[in-house]
Amino acid sequence: MKHTSRIASIYKDLQQQMCRQLEKGDGKGLFQQLPWTKDIGSGLTCVMKNGDVIEKAGLNFSHVEGDFSDKMEALLGMKAARYSATGISSIIHPFNPFVPIIHMNVRFFELDNGVCWFGGGIDLTPHYIDESEAAWFHRSLKDICDQYNGDYYPDYKAWADNYFFIKHRNETRGVGGIFFDRVQPQDEGELDRLLNYTIDLAKAYPRIYNQIMDKKRNKPYEQSHKQWQAMRRGRYVEYNLVYDRGTKFGLESGGNIESILVSMPPMAQWEYSFEPSLESPEQHTLDLLKKEIDWIKKE
Amino acid sequence: MKHTSRIASIYKDLQQQMCRQLEKGDGKGLFQQLPWTKDIGSGLTCVMKNGDVIEKAGLNFSHVEGDFSDKMEALLGMKAARYSATGISSIIHPFNPFVPIIHMNVRFFELDNGVCWFGGGIDLTPHYIDESEAAWFHRSLKDICDQYNGDYYPDYKAWADNYFFIKHRNETRGVGGIFFDRVQPQDEGELDRLLNYTIDLAKAYPRIYNQIMDKKRNKPYEQSHKQWQAMRRGRYVEYNLVYDRGTKFGLESGGNIESILVSMPPMAQWEYSFEPSLESPEQHTLDLLKKEIDWIKKE
Repeated sequence: MKHTSRIASIYKDLQQQMCRQLEKGDGKGLFQQLPWTKDIGSGLTCVMKNGDVIEKAGLNFSHVEGDFSDKMEALLGMKAARYSATGISSIIHPFNPFVPIIHMNVRFFELDNGVCWFGGGIDLTPHYIDESEAAWFHRSLKDICDQYNGDYYPDYKAWADNYFFIKHRNETRGVGGIFFDRVQPQDEGELDRLLNYTIDLAKAYPRIYNQIMDKKRNKPYEQSHKQWQAMRRGRYVEYNLVYDRGTKFGLESGGNIESILVSMPPMAQWEYSFEPSLESPEQHTLDLLKKEIDWIKKE
Repeated sequence: MKHTSRIASIYKDLQQQMCRQLEKGDGKGLFQQLPWTKDIGSGLTCVMKNGDVIEKAGLNFSHVEGDFSDKMEALLGMKAARYSATGISSIIHPFNPFVPIIHMNVRFFELDNGVCWFGGGIDLTPHYIDESEAAWFHRSLKDICDQYNGDYYPDYKAWADNYFFIKHRNETRGVGGIFFDRVQPQDEGELDRLLNYTIDLAKAYPRIYNQIMDKKRNKPYEQSHKQWQAMRRGRYVEYNLVYDRGTKFGLESGGNIESILVSMPPMAQWEYSFEPSLESPEQHTLDLLKKEIDWIKKE
């Protein structure tokens, strides 16, 4: 469709830039490039395994087009015959438990009735919460948001708190970040501004993660920290399979299964009723897995 | 309610017998007894960790009662004011990759409008399929079923093939077994016969698993077998979080989270697009993860 093809080509180039930057930041791992084609479109799954800091990273691009189903009609509350969509999504799982898991996604959706919108988000899931890192992370996102609209950061930060939430555990997935969906441009000028906003977010993703890796990559850890990391990864699995809209949509719509589930951690653990000891760093992290924390103010 | 209380007390005793038998079979591990109480009722979660053969086992009993929700009305297609339910459910994850994962559940559901029914099932998920073990397992279930009704085994075996199916992977969870739901007794005599059927299935569970443990517990394995086991456990996680009705119902209804997720494996792994080599035992297993295999006939 009109805008989707243009944006898909921009996103596809962006994906390559992001891969190169993350490879530089990791210093050892390289992304394998795995193109795929299905009835509904095509994509490029980039996977890094066993880097120096990064244990497993997925960085996907896709560009699809199809009939607008009854389910979409009910979900979106509007009628159309065809839709097209393009996006980049990524998750990184590090070896070192003091380096956080990170996730980002930008996407564009267009209908043949002329309606289109952007969505996206970046969120950080530390195995061990470092409050100054969380504050710096949120400030980095706020700086980008503020260049576009002063309401973006507060609105999308609150949205992330509610979206990246593991309801059955009554805990947030991590320290949050930003999340937004169905932001519709009113004219072509606004469409370009929103496109630039998603490009800036995508570019910020490797830059932010490279800085975090630099700072934490050599922090020593023990077996007990690895065990806690595996349990937190278990929560990540629960979130992705039970709540994540992209994953659920992918599994139901018959997308590329391996690409959809490249977000799964390399190794995860479930321990019955594990309770960290009081005043441990693990308990400190659990205490901070709450909505509505003003991380920037905590700094 | 009328029948539920009586059946709950039988199931609760049965749970203890099953624990003792599995402890005997394992030879080292003991079940911890963890009672819980919530608004909707109470239960007893029994957990074994780090036995000799069993790495992690959950064996839960629960007895709940509550208002019949609109959701239940839509799901079950009938009206009632209150419901009560009781059941036993269990999953066992062994250390040795040549010992299979096993699962069983029996449950009774009663409405205040007089309608009631039984449900249940047992299924086996080998990390490495052993066709003669699968045949023996199916024959053991068929022998119990045939004492009650000649249609039970063929009907419930087919039901299990469809129920224990990982749709997004297009593979069965394991070699299946039996599954049934909403089997309504027409009179009190039939209610007792169905109750006895579920009791016989519950009793068969530790007996079957103890025999399998006996046979396989000392089979040597290597790191590559453990890795494959971890990947198969990843599939088990996918099944339980995406499809399993009990898990989904539990997560949505605010049940006891740790008891519901005691079914999760101790350690699981996801590897991007792993493909076993041709003619390997791993590929042999994948080739047999299909519906409609007549295991008994294969013997």
